[in-house]
Amino acid sequence: MSLEENSDEGVSHVVPQQIVQEVLRHADANLRASLDRFFQFLRIPSISCDASYSSQCHKAASWISDELSSIGFAASVRPTTGNPIVVAHNKETDGPHVLFYGHYDVQPVEPLEAWNSNPFEPSLKEQPDGETHIVARGASDDKGQLLTFIEACRSWRAVTGHIPIKVSMFFEGEEESGSPSMEAFLDEAGEELNADVMLLCDTYLWRDAVPAITVMFRGILEQEVEIICANRDLHSGAYGNAARNPIQVLAELIASLRGAKGEITIDGFYDDIQDLNKQIRNDISRLDFDTDAFLRDAGLSKSAGDTSYSVLEQIWTRPSCEINGIAGGYYGDGLKTVIPSTARAKISFRLVAGQDPERIQSKFRDHIRARTPADCKVKFTGFGGSPASLISSRSEYLGCARAALKLEWACEPVLIGSGGSIPIVSLVKRRLGLDSLPIGFARSDNRHHSPNEKYDLSSFHKGIRSWIRILAELSRCTIVQPPSFAGDNTGADDHVDR
Amino acid sequence: MSLEENSDEGVSHVVPQQIVQEVLRHADANLRASLDRFFQFLRIPSISCDASYSSQCHKAASWISDELSSIGFAASVRPTTGNPIVVAHNKETDGPHVLFYGHYDVQPVEPLEAWNSNPFEPSLKEQPDGETHIVARGASDDKGQLLTFIEACRSWRAVTGHIPIKVSMFFEGEEESGSPSMEAFLDEAGEELNADVMLLCDTYLWRDAVPAITVMFRGILEQEVEIICANRDLHSGAYGNAARNPIQVLAELIASLRGAKGEITIDGFYDDIQDLNKQIRNDISRLDFDTDAFLRDAGLSKSAGDTSYSVLEQIWTRPSCEINGIAGGYYGDGLKTVIPSTARAKISFRLVAGQDPERIQSKFRDHIRARTPADCKVKFTGFGGSPASLISSRSEYLGCARAALKLEWACEPVLIGSGGSIPIVSLVKRRLGLDSLPIGFARSDNRHHSPNEKYDLSSFHKGIRSWIRILAELSRCTIVQPPSFAGDNTGADDHVDR
Repeated sequence: MSLEENSDEGVSHVVPQQIVQEVLRHADANLRASLDRFFQFLRIPSISCDASYSSQCHKAASWISDELSSIGFAASVRPTTGNPIVVAHNKETDGPHVLFYGHYDVQPVEPLEAWNSNPFEPSLKEQPDGETHIVARGASDDKGQLLTFIEACRSWRAVTGHIPIKVSMFFEGEEESGSPSMEAFLDEAGEELNADVMLLCDTYLWRDAVPAITVMFRGILEQEVEIICANRDLHSGAYGNAARNPIQVLAELIASLRGAKGEITIDGFYDDIQDLNKQIRNDISRLDFDTDAFLRDAGLSKSAGDTSYSVLEQIWTRPSCEINGIAGGYYGDGLKTVIPSTARAKISFRLVAGQDPERIQSKFRDHIRARTPADCKVKFTGFGGSPASLISSRSEYLGCARAALKLEWACEPVLIGSGGSIPIVSLVKRRLGLDSLPIGFARSDNRHHSPNEKYDLSSFHKGIRSWIRILAELSRCTIVQPPSFAGDNTGADDHVDR
Repeated sequence: MSLEENSDEGVSHVVPQQIVQEVLRHADANLRASLDRFFQFLRIPSISCDASYSSQCHKAASWISDELSSIGFAASVRPTTGNPIVVAHNKETDGPHVLFYGHYDVQPVEPLEAWNSNPFEPSLKEQPDGETHIVARGASDDKGQLLTFIEACRSWRAVTGHIPIKVSMFFEGEEESGSPSMEAFLDEAGEELNADVMLLCDTYLWRDAVPAITVMFRGILEQEVEIICANRDLHSGAYGNAARNPIQVLAELIASLRGAKGEITIDGFYDDIQDLNKQIRNDISRLDFDTDAFLRDAGLSKSAGDTSYSVLEQIWTRPSCEINGIAGGYYGDGLKTVIPSTARAKISFRLVAGQDPERIQSKFRDHIRARTPADCKVKFTGFGGSPASLISSRSEYLGCARAALKLEWACEPVLIGSGGSIPIVSLVKRRLGLDSLPIGFARSDNRHHSPNEKYDLSSFHKGIRSWIRILAELSRCTIVQPPSFAGDNTGADDHVDR
């Protein structure tokens, strides 16, 4: 996306380039020490899904808090009903205010036998291509990525005695377990975490040498539908034809959700979608994305979606409706001639900007109810949802971050979408009204959640350098007022086509 | 059905009515002794699905064999790879030859706590309406019912010294476990079991005072379909829209099997069906069948089937296609945003006369293959099938049995269909070429397979009396030649409408 150049060079907070260079040199010279701290952090087995590691999670929280205190942050460990959340502030300067998010908890390591080394004893593994892998559980997700930001702050502090903008941070210890404490925490901490924009580092490079900023995430709506017919399982000999079969009913309902082109046929489903402006569609079309390779990797050769859209558009910019699970009747060996009394399906919708999860839920349920035949009861269960996130491509923060990345990587960073969502992004948008700038340095082969998870040493090093530059560039941004909590999250100014 | 009256009173084997009356009086006078033998039989816990009761199954087999030997049958216990099969012959007379089938094994008794008395200590429970229940596991299914036939033979033997027609019998001990030994046994015993018709007693009265002969059973074809798309489970955020979802595909395929009226839309599915003659349709329409009560009992109020047909026609005379099970993706608590790589459904067809299971399988698979989209593999598993059974309403044996029942019950017995099948009926048709006459005396509330299974004392008594009369009436039948093994099983002469 060609952004309007931010030519407002005259604001008081701009950092001279020679200072930035000094900070970068300091980071380079102290990479070994950064790596030592990274290793300390990795050695803490902060697995959140297993309560027996709870003390290790507390230990990891204290470790971060201590590190942040040592570089001038007012840091503290905040208890929750689960693992604690670390909060830290450094508001010494007058610049704009960013809020950085990360998580210190990690996935479990099973199957342990698939690891080539102890998952909590990090090791450096040199690769034939000259790269060095840092192998450990959490190396990439999220300890390495979050440390790039902390180490960038450390270098700024070491060289200049301060950080060029206001920085707050918070780190949770339950991200890998669905963040059960986060919503209540944000509600309580709300005012304290107010900032101009949220930064996070839980994402990927586009290519090994091309950084990316994720500017849109699809939202989600999760539903279960149960169809109930007879008052008990019936014998298909005694009742076959006459008794309504809930699997047949459910299949027909599911079939009714998609049309011949793969389009979703729920009445009004697409009504509220805000068209992407031509520039974003144009940018997506110019990305060097190998559709065939993407499908081939999954064993597929042909997109199932609406062919009016490219595959990247289908997965980033178009809402979807996927059946995630279905169950009904007998499913053991052989066959049992039963007409079951119920059948159930789990269905999730990926939403795009403009679609309100509650409104989509109503439309979906109306669609199902209208097509449920006589003698069937339909029971809905909702598992919640969240709207899509779309940052305005006119955002000043986005422009500054992009300029910083271009300096570091010597190429134009790409603005990408994500078919999935990072729950914290929509949660922070809803609760604090903040847009997010997700900028990550992981490579796509980092094996996160899998055995032998790794982070590339170059990701770690260039990640630190990138954040050093981003902190400098962000100092150019206008200081905004604390955002209103009533703001909607559609980035509506970006949608000019309709 | 109004049958042609069998007026061929002149054949040599006809038994004078005063002899029949003597045999009936003997049965009445000795009911207590019959009941004592029934109780002995019920005390043997011949549960076939639990190998630890194997010796009890052998004991039950020996018990029957001994009883039959004591009334002049050449009886023996034949080993199989499972529980033994008892075979017995009495061919002293020159009359026609019937083969009687029954099973001495019973269902397990769990949950034991739901029984009001020991399931293997039979008890007589007098009812407010004057009826007496014989309560025990197997009382109705099938020990009581099969004993009605043996006790009838006993009375004939006691009064006249012989049985008025040739009688062979066989009793298996694995009916409640899918009869795994039966096919091999029939192949081996084939010639020995040749007869003119098979009798069995595994069915119900139509009303408490109205006996029934089941003249048609639907056949069955059992299939599993698996749809395979991606080479692994995919994330619905990363792939949603673009990747083919096998649950969606399977749902659309299932939806394509039935039309708006509930008709089955597989090309050529109904082609080979032989129309029922008007008389049978007419007879069915005259049965006092309470459609609303039938549906209401299952918690339903409206038939799901093709309304061109009555509910009884839908379940007896029309083929069905029922989804018996479906599974795919995630089905635990909550929701997992997965696009699974596979989804499977178990589907069974109930077939009617004229439909060949193999041909229907081909048509079904062609239907599925033609509609399976790109990038999906489809995998079929067959669990076998068997054609429908339809006895010709012109059958001489049917006519005689009907006349005998009319004499005993003082009303016209009804000819009914069954939406399910009794596997032995189609197996014996295929292997031995024999039509069956299923005549049972159980009431519909007999709780077979359930706790507190019972058989009415009147069922037992009038069952014995009915068989005494049937054996007398069958002696009027023409002696037929051993049937050809190539005979088809469609009773084609009965189908004159087309």
